[in-house]
Amino acid sequence: MTRFAPLPASLPTTVPFIGAETLERRRGTPFAARLGANESAFGPSPLAARAMREAVGQIWKYGDGPSHDLTHALAAHLSVEPRHIMVGEGIDGLLGNLVRLMVAPGDAVVTSEGAYPTFNYHVAGFGGVLHKVPYRDDAEDLQALLDCARQVGARLVYLSNPDNPMGSWHKGTAIRAMLDDLPQDCLLVLDEAYAEFAPQDALPDISADDPRVIRMRTFSKAYGLAGARIGYAIGAPDLIAGFDRIRNHFGVNRIAQAGALAALADQGWLAHVVAEVHAARDRIAEIGAANGLTPLPSAANFVALDTGCDGAHARALVAALEAEGVFVRMPGVAPLDRCIRISCGPVTQMETLAEALPRALARLNPA
Amino acid sequence: MTRFAPLPASLPTTVPFIGAETLERRRGTPFAARLGANESAFGPSPLAARAMREAVGQIWKYGDGPSHDLTHALAAHLSVEPRHIMVGEGIDGLLGNLVRLMVAPGDAVVTSEGAYPTFNYHVAGFGGVLHKVPYRDDAEDLQALLDCARQVGARLVYLSNPDNPMGSWHKGTAIRAMLDDLPQDCLLVLDEAYAEFAPQDALPDISADDPRVIRMRTFSKAYGLAGARIGYAIGAPDLIAGFDRIRNHFGVNRIAQAGALAALADQGWLAHVVAEVHAARDRIAEIGAANGLTPLPSAANFVALDTGCDGAHARALVAALEAEGVFVRMPGVAPLDRCIRISCGPVTQMETLAEALPRALARLNPA
Repeated sequence: MTRFAPLPASLPTTVPFIGAETLERRRGTPFAARLGANESAFGPSPLAARAMREAVGQIWKYGDGPSHDLTHALAAHLSVEPRHIMVGEGIDGLLGNLVRLMVAPGDAVVTSEGAYPTFNYHVAGFGGVLHKVPYRDDAEDLQALLDCARQVGARLVYLSNPDNPMGSWHKGTAIRAMLDDLPQDCLLVLDEAYAEFAPQDALPDISADDPRVIRMRTFSKAYGLAGARIGYAIGAPDLIAGFDRIRNHFGVNRIAQAGALAALADQGWLAHVVAEVHAARDRIAEIGAANGLTPLPSAANFVALDTGCDGAHARALVAALEAEGVFVRMPGVAPLDRCIRISCGPVTQMETLAEALPRALARLNPA
Repeated sequence: MTRFAPLPASLPTTVPFIGAETLERRRGTPFAARLGANESAFGPSPLAARAMREAVGQIWKYGDGPSHDLTHALAAHLSVEPRHIMVGEGIDGLLGNLVRLMVAPGDAVVTSEGAYPTFNYHVAGFGGVLHKVPYRDDAEDLQALLDCARQVGARLVYLSNPDNPMGSWHKGTAIRAMLDDLPQDCLLVLDEAYAEFAPQDALPDISADDPRVIRMRTFSKAYGLAGARIGYAIGAPDLIAGFDRIRNHFGVNRIAQAGALAALADQGWLAHVVAEVHAARDRIAEIGAANGLTPLPSAANFVALDTGCDGAHARALVAALEAEGVFVRMPGVAPLDRCIRISCGPVTQMETLAEALPRALARLNPA
């Protein structure tokens, strides 16, 4: 048997993240509706798709190490400087590198009980000690996060706004105020993967030079490029420069860079997708309500539907929907796990959901 | 200022790897010939290019986490089982994860003085202590690697076969024999990025279940997919399974998976590329010799040309070639750094080299 280093030797051996294709292989058939991973079935901008097809001709070349063109375009788009931006292999890749940069084994990190599991995976993977606070009214509890961070001497506090998996959100002013109460030497990791779907006032007005926070954005959600693995961090220049100490310098796919650049330039398509998502949110809420499930307000590209029962019931409903050909997911822990989480999709997928949900519920409560 | 964790805080702040695009931005003009990164300007299989263009339509979906189809196709191609294979984000990504899995801070790792810098970067990045042995006759010195590994109690020994940057190679039987002399608890990291260009007898016959070695392969070189960031490791199942403890489970680009799968299926294109590379190796040797540089034998897709002078001279020649529009690289340390390293390319790029080299040499020795 291979002897791993002590830290990885202590980590779980199980694969924590099961994707749609793995489930489809287990089922033996594809899903009729893929509504479990908060992807954008509306697709990327046609201009981004064209740019990616054209970039295939240059795929024999390594990608540009600093993602120069995309970094500069993002800086212009966000009215910051290129040194405030780090492009990386999706938020997952950026979170891993951030944890590695900031967290030594034994260091404390704070998040919410039921928030993004991949962040927790990276913290555990680098030997950090996770402290979790409960959600409050299905939203991340800013004060509890701050209190816990102070109590445990946290190096990082994770906050997703809008929140995944509940879809709830805080006002930007509240998050801005949170920074002033952050303990010394603690960095706020503000995951804004769903920023494009949120009301404008949910995005805090924070200087890119502020050393107390790093913001994470992605092309996987509103821009429809989940399979491309490309996202970016916004932060103070010395923190951003830190990534160059540890990242894979040629790790960002060349086609992804071309696609993201073209996607960013097509803000008209983005507006179209956001409008479609708003309509789909309403439709999911309507479908849920028609079937006795209570939709939670959402500022993201998914809706949490409250079953009114417990986690066992919700898990059975997810399985029943899967059996009906609809891939959805749900929060992992109580009390959030009374809900199921359904991603927004085009009308045909929403109608597949509308047909499948009553059948799935009937499986749970046979007449 | 941000306070990093102690290990990353101790790492160099400089970006160690400067790519072709960065150099082009500094120059202000593109290179006429891109022969510095051992990419394949022959391009990928047209069938792989088509598969990638078609995969753009599905890019809104995350890639398949276990890269199931590619893993199974590789297993069939290599006559091993899927559990012997781990697909990852290029050899660079796989090396980083391997070092993280195996090397605790302070652990000893052995490589050759002048061998692949990215491996060293990862070892330093995870706190390993590098021990380097010199090349012997421009080849990695198997006995010296073994002796050093025993002496320092190494956890990993890195060996590239064929070797980058010199192009030299060992017979598979010698590498096979090396395994029997590896110290207990030491893993051989056999980087076979250039395997497809090598003579058949350079590839050792090693059981995929052998726990003493992990082999690294890539689609970046012979398969022409450097920008796609996809490669794989072959090793004993318990070692391969270890990657699932730490890797980004959805980190491999969806288009890259489709491209690699189609590229692997087109072995006719691979044979074509290998034949082109053989011809280009001869042409580089000829061009070098015509200009007073001594070509070293190569089993890779590049040729090291011995300038017969020292590193300062070779560095000046690389700069002069760059000024003439030709991107090449060179080994970083003496005595290898008397050479420059030129990647194989299509005839037009070889003829650009033939025209530029005498002009570059003339810059060094003005009449």
